[in-house]
Amino acid sequence: MQNQQIQTLKGFRDFLPVDKRKRDYLINKISQSFQAFGFVPLETPSLEYASLLLGKYGEEADKLVYTFKDQGDRKVALRYDQTVPLARVIYENQNQLTFPFKRYQIQPVWRGEKPQKGRYREFLQCDIDILGTNNLLSDAEIILCVLQTARNLGFENLKMLVNNRSVFKDLEAKYISTIDKLEEIGEQAVVNELIEKGMEKEKASTLLSEIQKKEPTEALQKLFKYLEDSGLEKEKDFEYQPTLARGLDYYTGTIFELVSGDYTAGSLGGGGRYDKLIGSFFGKDIAAVGFAFGFDRLIEAMEAKNLFPSKILQPVTQVLVTIFAPELTNKSLETASELRKKQINTELYLNEDENLSDQLDYANEKNIPWVIILGKDELEKDKLALKNMQTGKQELLSLKEVISKLKNENQN
Amino acid sequence: MQNQQIQTLKGFRDFLPVDKRKRDYLINKISQSFQAFGFVPLETPSLEYASLLLGKYGEEADKLVYTFKDQGDRKVALRYDQTVPLARVIYENQNQLTFPFKRYQIQPVWRGEKPQKGRYREFLQCDIDILGTNNLLSDAEIILCVLQTARNLGFENLKMLVNNRSVFKDLEAKYISTIDKLEEIGEQAVVNELIEKGMEKEKASTLLSEIQKKEPTEALQKLFKYLEDSGLEKEKDFEYQPTLARGLDYYTGTIFELVSGDYTAGSLGGGGRYDKLIGSFFGKDIAAVGFAFGFDRLIEAMEAKNLFPSKILQPVTQVLVTIFAPELTNKSLETASELRKKQINTELYLNEDENLSDQLDYANEKNIPWVIILGKDELEKDKLALKNMQTGKQELLSLKEVISKLKNENQN
Repeated sequence: MQNQQIQTLKGFRDFLPVDKRKRDYLINKISQSFQAFGFVPLETPSLEYASLLLGKYGEEADKLVYTFKDQGDRKVALRYDQTVPLARVIYENQNQLTFPFKRYQIQPVWRGEKPQKGRYREFLQCDIDILGTNNLLSDAEIILCVLQTARNLGFENLKMLVNNRSVFKDLEAKYISTIDKLEEIGEQAVVNELIEKGMEKEKASTLLSEIQKKEPTEALQKLFKYLEDSGLEKEKDFEYQPTLARGLDYYTGTIFELVSGDYTAGSLGGGGRYDKLIGSFFGKDIAAVGFAFGFDRLIEAMEAKNLFPSKILQPVTQVLVTIFAPELTNKSLETASELRKKQINTELYLNEDENLSDQLDYANEKNIPWVIILGKDELEKDKLALKNMQTGKQELLSLKEVISKLKNENQN
Repeated sequence: MQNQQIQTLKGFRDFLPVDKRKRDYLINKISQSFQAFGFVPLETPSLEYASLLLGKYGEEADKLVYTFKDQGDRKVALRYDQTVPLARVIYENQNQLTFPFKRYQIQPVWRGEKPQKGRYREFLQCDIDILGTNNLLSDAEIILCVLQTARNLGFENLKMLVNNRSVFKDLEAKYISTIDKLEEIGEQAVVNELIEKGMEKEKASTLLSEIQKKEPTEALQKLFKYLEDSGLEKEKDFEYQPTLARGLDYYTGTIFELVSGDYTAGSLGGGGRYDKLIGSFFGKDIAAVGFAFGFDRLIEAMEAKNLFPSKILQPVTQVLVTIFAPELTNKSLETASELRKKQINTELYLNEDENLSDQLDYANEKNIPWVIILGKDELEKDKLALKNMQTGKQELLSLKEVISKLKNENQN
């Protein structure tokens, strides 16, 4: 491999089998949870006309969009988020979709950001959104669905922090993004940054405590009532947090962030109501509320809390059929085939010329729990040797007995 | 949306919920089938260094690779197939992978081809490969796994057409690609094209019948024996087809193509042995054999043969909880929450101000089979009305009865 880069690009990742299985598990589990609340899946192309994406995310973000000219000299761009393509889909299919439209979407997005720990140039977004209603029942529905999804993944001590953007209605956007850092940098640093950004010293030093004193708005109180009616407990399952700001400019109402008391390295995701954004494509407002899980954060948190079920980390293969000698290959093929007919996940060793000890090494390396040995002695008795690779114990059994043993183990 | 293209690029597709669910079903089903044979999943990034991809697929194909310069002025390219990235992964991880390495991979690839019916610029590839052994047992294993996978999807009358590239060893590559068209264009057209390409008339007119007379090579006979030992029937499950050529240049041994007697619009996929390709990255040969399903073809064929289970085409939501009147919203929230606790897929109608008939319309449009109505009369009796949207029949039941009825239906 001369003159070529035989490595991944910075900020891009291969997922080898164990990691890929974790990701697939997470995607399936999340999808099922979303579907249980009536959300339906959507997929959009990786490439869009660049003109669709540019100018939607702000000047700084536009620089991070991967844009280029394709073979037909069209200016195209890689998906930067799932919201703008969603808006296009809504625009093109408004007559065939049922509103409120509840969709989920789990696809990669690409951002040319500086790679750093936990930040990649290609990463999965994992969104649910409800479009077409500004009714607070949909804000409640998003919060309920997200909490249940995280619970289904095994997280505990979950809490949704909730606020409403109207708390900051008299504040300039530049100050809001500073307040958003409160959790991260602490109160004093926030005050300093507010002053740096031009706020009067006196105002800056009292601003946070003033915000903290604010009562929840009427809309928030109504939302909290919906959550309580749904069985959630205030302070435990959700909490009013008037200093919660969320970074993005486009939020217009409720904002929320999911945290777990067991995992303090950061929030598991966030979202809120954005009634103007989708509409900006249409010339009329389309109300929307949504939530995005941080997929890589979830993976990290689940690893830290050991939330992946052990079966995901173990091989899918239950048994390896070895080949005792080339002239007995037919017996091994036949046996593998019989096991597979009984839905037992079976591997056949793929070389009839190698000795048994190499074949057992393969099973060991791949963590395959059982190995079948079909030697002349066994075959004469019309039996197989079933070896437990963990204990090393070996039993002489009929094929029927092997099948019943493995199937039985399968069900446990 | 002025000055911007509010449409997908030509050759690119949105997948709305019903189609997306079909695709997810197919991906899951195929993955499970591959895993049952001991194949493990792999994922590689969408973008690679362009130098890795270019020069690997031939001059014509290179033009179809999406390449561009990223923000850091690196020349990058979108994944064109899954084989070259696989070679890179093998190269970078040779010490931590167990060989033979059996992996499957289902990811999109991008090709700037002229879009036409059934051909897209972004489409899923669906590959299994065994790397690191040239033992014919692995050719057999691929064929067995592929046939079982297609059977698991519901296909019948499946047959793997099999040949070995050595049949054509004295023939120039340009002639092989003509023979590859035999099924598509017929015998006479093949002869004509061979002559056009420079073959002597006499040779061209006898070539096909000569090839058809060729006996299977020793390697093929050994492979057929393995397949029969595994319970496959010759002529029925697999068939020697000496004119099978497969388009790609890189095949070195066995080649095969999967057809279904029930679906004659084209093969479901194909593959073969390519012992030189992966090695070309290493400077030493890495033997390999693999198969690729045509994902879009599978979708098409499954639609034509009605192989998608009806539950995939029906909504996941089992019941819609309506809101009878704003002051009764709490009762609906409570009920939805109770149903969800019992793992019943529940939607809540998201507007307490709309009348019941609009709410029933929503259920109808979304094909939700059951609707719960909680009016004052029902609540006074501590009951719910459960309406069957298909029959229109309505029953007065306790919450407990509703749960047991819906859970019971769920299990059928």
